[in-house]
Amino acid sequence: MRKIGVLGGMGPEATIYFMQQVVDAVQARDDADHIPLVVDNNTQVPSRIKAILEGGGEDPGPVLAQMAKGLVGAGAEALVMPCNTAHFYADQVTEATDKPFLNMVDMACAEAARIAPGGMVGLLGSPALQQVGVFEAALAKVDLNPVYASEQGRMLATIRSIKAQGPSEFAAHTLSDICTQMVADGADVICICCTEFSLLAKEIEAKAPLFDALQLLVGAAVAFSRSGAPLEQAGSIASGVATAG
Amino acid sequence: MRKIGVLGGMGPEATIYFMQQVVDAVQARDDADHIPLVVDNNTQVPSRIKAILEGGGEDPGPVLAQMAKGLVGAGAEALVMPCNTAHFYADQVTEATDKPFLNMVDMACAEAARIAPGGMVGLLGSPALQQVGVFEAALAKVDLNPVYASEQGRMLATIRSIKAQGPSEFAAHTLSDICTQMVADGADVICICCTEFSLLAKEIEAKAPLFDALQLLVGAAVAFSRSGAPLEQAGSIASGVATAG
Repeated sequence: MRKIGVLGGMGPEATIYFMQQVVDAVQARDDADHIPLVVDNNTQVPSRIKAILEGGGEDPGPVLAQMAKGLVGAGAEALVMPCNTAHFYADQVTEATDKPFLNMVDMACAEAARIAPGGMVGLLGSPALQQVGVFEAALAKVDLNPVYASEQGRMLATIRSIKAQGPSEFAAHTLSDICTQMVADGADVICICCTEFSLLAKEIEAKAPLFDALQLLVGAAVAFSRSGAPLEQAGSIASGVATAG
Repeated sequence: MRKIGVLGGMGPEATIYFMQQVVDAVQARDDADHIPLVVDNNTQVPSRIKAILEGGGEDPGPVLAQMAKGLVGAGAEALVMPCNTAHFYADQVTEATDKPFLNMVDMACAEAARIAPGGMVGLLGSPALQQVGVFEAALAKVDLNPVYASEQGRMLATIRSIKAQGPSEFAAHTLSDICTQMVADGADVICICCTEFSLLAKEIEAKAPLFDALQLLVGAAVAFSRSGAPLEQAGSIASGVATAG
């Protein structure tokens, strides 16, 4: 099995949740059946939300590129980043090493296109996603349009409360409310695209199909680790898993 | 905050549990308040139980030494290994780099000596601990004697069931039974010294004080990360935390 490098710590709870999902995805008889991961649970990455929403502060991009190099140095054969907002810096991560970066945003867009071809995708994620259009190019490529929450302040407050106090019933209710609004605004499918919200994926209710981008990343990481395919096929493996749902 | 390197994957659930405990130990307002970790969740370390109990197979020692080097290369300023049995190879890990290794077995013995000075310590852990005396020297140093479970086969079966199916109520009952036996055999204090059993720490019942070696390691890692003390003081920081309970 090939070792997967995880650019983590954004936040640490989400990274741990990703790791647990990877463990749960495997039918194991012993440790050795599980996927080997090397994880930089770097809680000191400059705030992505701050850099994007408020401007100023240290640029997270070079820090993420350095983490990618360190993980490959520690044996990673592919990289993942369980933080949707940080995918704003995906190009810098991709260019930092010669190993494939399994792009969660691309996977999410492929999955949304499978569920609602040509439709509208409600993006249940950080306001920073909208501000800099983290999903826009990837959605346009598969002929989809985004629906953002009208109450972005409420979304941001919810992220901050989960980062500080962990997932709560109140946060789940808030996110279900926001889903209802996004469906009223035309969303055909809803994508959980904030790994803090992934912690509440089972508690969020929506009147449209709902999926979690993080689960696609879990599937892609497991498939990549197990496959003996050459590195250049990694992208297609990842999207293969993503589109298979 | 200084980055802690984690020799993990033995098993992966225990590593994730350790990481979650480190997160839970911190009062955080944002990601940056959390302890940075770099984790080699290496599920492919040769089986410690197999190497020790059955002999033959690949030697885990050199693999662990290599992991230690990799973690220090990735920025770790101290190393931890959330697996008691693997502490059989502690010297090889310690000698692999010039960074301090926060030794969970030493911490556990210090804590047991604090609770029951000169007494008997029930070791709730892998049969491999007894077979090669992982705790013996460290216990002798603080004037304590070990009590092992009389039914080592039951212990091993419980470890294997947790590694394969995760923690269960049945496993917790079995471990509580074994605690009762160890207290009958003279144990003044019981130390959970298998990170698979740590997953059930809150469910295990004993008629003697019971503590979890892993929790001491969590405290030591947090204290080391936060302290600005020079590296040569790391050992005393670790044992300071351990003895403070």
